[in-house]
Amino acid sequence: MTSIATLGSHCSLQVLKGAKDEGFKTILVCEKKREKLYRRFKFIDELIIVEKFSEILNQEIQEKLKQQDAILIPHGTLIAQMSSEEIESITVPIFGNKWILRWESDRTMKEKLMREATLPMPKPVTEPKDIEKLVIVKRQGAAGGKGYFMAANEEDYNTKRNQLISEGVISKDETLYIQEYAAGVLAYLQFFYSPLTGELEFFGVDQRHESDIEGLGRIPSEQQLKSKKVPSFNVIGNSPLVLRESLLDEVYTMGENFVEAAKRIVSPGMNGPFCIEGVYDENAKFTSFEFSARIVAGTNIYMDGSPYYSLLFNENMSMGKRIAREVKIAEEKNEIEKIVT
Amino acid sequence: MTSIATLGSHCSLQVLKGAKDEGFKTILVCEKKREKLYRRFKFIDELIIVEKFSEILNQEIQEKLKQQDAILIPHGTLIAQMSSEEIESITVPIFGNKWILRWESDRTMKEKLMREATLPMPKPVTEPKDIEKLVIVKRQGAAGGKGYFMAANEEDYNTKRNQLISEGVISKDETLYIQEYAAGVLAYLQFFYSPLTGELEFFGVDQRHESDIEGLGRIPSEQQLKSKKVPSFNVIGNSPLVLRESLLDEVYTMGENFVEAAKRIVSPGMNGPFCIEGVYDENAKFTSFEFSARIVAGTNIYMDGSPYYSLLFNENMSMGKRIAREVKIAEEKNEIEKIVT
Amino acid sequence: MTSIATLGSHCSLQVLKGAKDEGFKTILVCEKKREKLYRRFKFIDELIIVEKFSEILNQEIQEKLKQQDAILIPHGTLIAQMSSEEIESITVPIFGNKWILRWESDRTMKEKLMREATLPMPKPVTEPKDIEKLVIVKRQGAAGGKGYFMAANEEDYNTKRNQLISEGVISKDETLYIQEYAAGVLAYLQFFYSPLTGELEFFGVDQRHESDIEGLGRIPSEQQLKSKKVPSFNVIGNSPLVLRESLLDEVYTMGENFVEAAKRIVSPGMNGPFCIEGVYDENAKFTSFEFSARIVAGTNIYMDGSPYYSLLFNENMSMGKRIAREVKIAEEKNEIEKIVT
Repeated sequence: MTSIATLGSHCSLQVLKGAKDEGFKTILVCEKKREKLYRRFKFIDELIIVEKFSEILNQEIQEKLKQQDAILIPHGTLIAQMSSEEIESITVPIFGNKWILRWESDRTMKEKLMREATLPMPKPVTEPKDIEKLVIVKRQGAAGGKGYFMAANEEDYNTKRNQLISEGVISKDETLYIQEYAAGVLAYLQFFYSPLTGELEFFGVDQRHESDIEGLGRIPSEQQLKSKKVPSFNVIGNSPLVLRESLLDEVYTMGENFVEAAKRIVSPGMNGPFCIEGVYDENAKFTSFEFSARIVAGTNIYMDGSPYYSLLFNENMSMGKRIAREVKIAEEKNEIEKIVT
Repeated sequence: MTSIATLGSHCSLQVLKGAKDEGFKTILVCEKKREKLYRRFKFIDELIIVEKFSEILNQEIQEKLKQQDAILIPHGTLIAQMSSEEIESITVPIFGNKWILRWESDRTMKEKLMREATLPMPKPVTEPKDIEKLVIVKRQGAAGGKGYFMAANEEDYNTKRNQLISEGVISKDETLYIQEYAAGVLAYLQFFYSPLTGELEFFGVDQRHESDIEGLGRIPSEQQLKSKKVPSFNVIGNSPLVLRESLLDEVYTMGENFVEAAKRIVSPGMNGPFCIEGVYDENAKFTSFEFSARIVAGTNIYMDGSPYYSLLFNENMSMGKRIAREVKIAEEKNEIEKIVT
Repeated sequence: MTSIATLGSHCSLQVLKGAKDEGFKTILVCEKKREKLYRRFKFIDELIIVEKFSEILNQEIQEKLKQQDAILIPHGTLIAQMSSEEIESITVPIFGNKWILRWESDRTMKEKLMREATLPMPKPVTEPKDIEKLVIVKRQGAAGGKGYFMAANEEDYNTKRNQLISEGVISKDETLYIQEYAAGVLAYLQFFYSPLTGELEFFGVDQRHESDIEGLGRIPSEQQLKSKKVPSFNVIGNSPLVLRESLLDEVYTMGENFVEAAKRIVSPGMNGPFCIEGVYDENAKFTSFEFSARIVAGTNIYMDGSPYYSLLFNENMSMGKRIAREVKIAEEKNEIEKIVT
């Protein structure tokens, strides 16, 4: 009997609850320090306790998972804690396409795939002296928003950069990545693509709540100007959003372009859940600054179903349950190889 | 057998899903360019493809709808794309009161109805020289927030206005409409009034997410002051809100006052869904700057039911489903003429 | 047969709907001026009409409640409108622990319990001259945020204070309470502790929407600086949030520490619903500025179930329903005395 397994973090509760509801055995690879938390949830059938998640690379643990016919659901924690090589070396079947996770992790590859998908991206700024309007300055690699800052011109850039260096947040010789700041309504567009049906489903939208930038709007300008604190972008949580219906056509088009681009350049393509992350400007034009090639934590807000999935399913359907449903259908059709790598 | 029809935009997915769930045949009047989007949703039984929505004024299309005993559900797109005369000329039965839609579209009539309903409104400012505290400057007609701006005094007003003229956003001889800016918590109050039962139902509250004003709070004052960009108010999406329970009594009172006022001055009154849009200030006093005399897109956040409707119905009930339910009950009672115009 | 009773405000609709769904008779102690509102809701079996809520202290009304075997569900309105002595004098059984409500109302006791629970709190600032970074200045007692203000330094403190005195918002000899301002993502953590099972349940998170501080982020800095208005913090409503899953372990730990501390110092402990209120900073560190020792109005956003409760229950479960469920289970087990005081 097939099991569904995942790492204990990010969206594991949603994933395993959905798997249980679909009738699967559920396995959590759980850090020792989090055991108490996850024991609270009765829908988790088995905990494999590890000191750190990278132990999933050990043959012993992989054997345990394989003995139970486990399919591993990848999420943000897998990517944050392991290199692409390590993830690709896992021999337990991984839901979706494990090869595309590398394209999410590497900024150059990521932008290549986004260009291939014709996703509109913020304009890069090559040199600080070229800053003409508001920019956001990012660090290389996934630092989770820590050390990111905004700058209005070159002088402002230098002041902020020097301040963060002196605070030890960034290092002196670190290469920073400057792009035009896209202001507006943040929207994280969540999709599911089924290689079994060849259909793309739009699941929902969330907004991220980041600290301490979110608190900025509640500090009067007068006080802001008296403070030297550079705001940060650490993700704390998510909240729900629906879009103007007239934007949905473009949303589906972007999703399909992404699926098509992934099919062309990273076989077997963008199977399963993914997310296109960006901002709508004052002309309702979307600019995308990231994608996630797997389930995103923003789907947690819809643990009991999303507005858009209530249009597609006559039952409460979380993204975790949708994944498990896909496994179930693949098994019934004897096409498991189509949905895992 | 009765069908439910609507234009393909705004809240059409919610409306037709609700209609299908209530057992109706569903028809979408769909722009050719959006056909692909709407074909994805299996609950839409028939698409009537048009080049542009105004074709619904053609006898041919109206005949098609009448042959299927269609009731047309009006929404924001109908109002945005057709004149009041055109809407009133439609001979397909329109859910609710098509005559009140004119009162929504025309600013003078709108304010008259709001005064009749004793809704508290922001104080108008006659001349730029009378600006004493923060004002919002609006354009005549429904421009969707594009070109709206805030000003703190006359000088500020002139600077901003000139800038928007030079950017081509507003024209030099355009009459602008100045009103005191009501700051606080935005709340869009969604109601349904049933002429069958004579009862008013409070459905829910949403907040609008507008671009790029929403992004403003995430830009540090220091950077804001270095930029000359005038923020805009283009609606991108909606998110859910509940109100302090102690505010509900006044909410119902405002809704009832609106229903009563509409009965008096625009027969047969405010039947079906409507929305009162405003802001709660620091004394929890509500100021209303708009109303919508039909379903609003903010109900899309509750496609699977709202917190307040879960108090009234022991089932998931979207506004779209509520509309269809009303049609069903009217048919059973043989009182269809009470709910359409 | 047991009844569930509560005061008509705050979260009474949710509480009585949940009670009805669990099969209880429902009683609302209702102010005369609100009768019309509450008569709309068919799940309220009986209204006891009063001029003001303090009449619940009258023997006559308490007798009425006792005749119907009522259990009174306490909420914010009870605490706001009655002294601790008055609440403690009520002889109708109160759900949870009525003795702990005093610890919520009194700032000194509140901080004592928070320290006992090792909840991280904002650093207090003893004197205006010691203000080194952004502070929030609060009034003693529950003023609902009215008159609170932020200050960047001593001079700023004096200016703001003098302005609010001259506006009559605060009085000249009022002692103000200064603490370091914790900026970031606001999170109100909602829990339920069952003395029947000895288990703590995490129900959900909400964000409060306060006026007019919420509107501040939508006012450009340029206009803010031209205005002298001091923003206020009057709660208008609530919206939903989920947290990064990696924060949940600490959330449960804080909840358990609070439950344990309450057991030690205010018998019989923190039974039933409670809330820990605070903010996540840029390092995802939580700082708690309040707790509520009873159901909070933020649970109203989840009248039909919360994301986190959908992990624990295979049915829609509001906090109101959870309370009623606890009463039902206690009755079945003949352990009512464990869940009331």
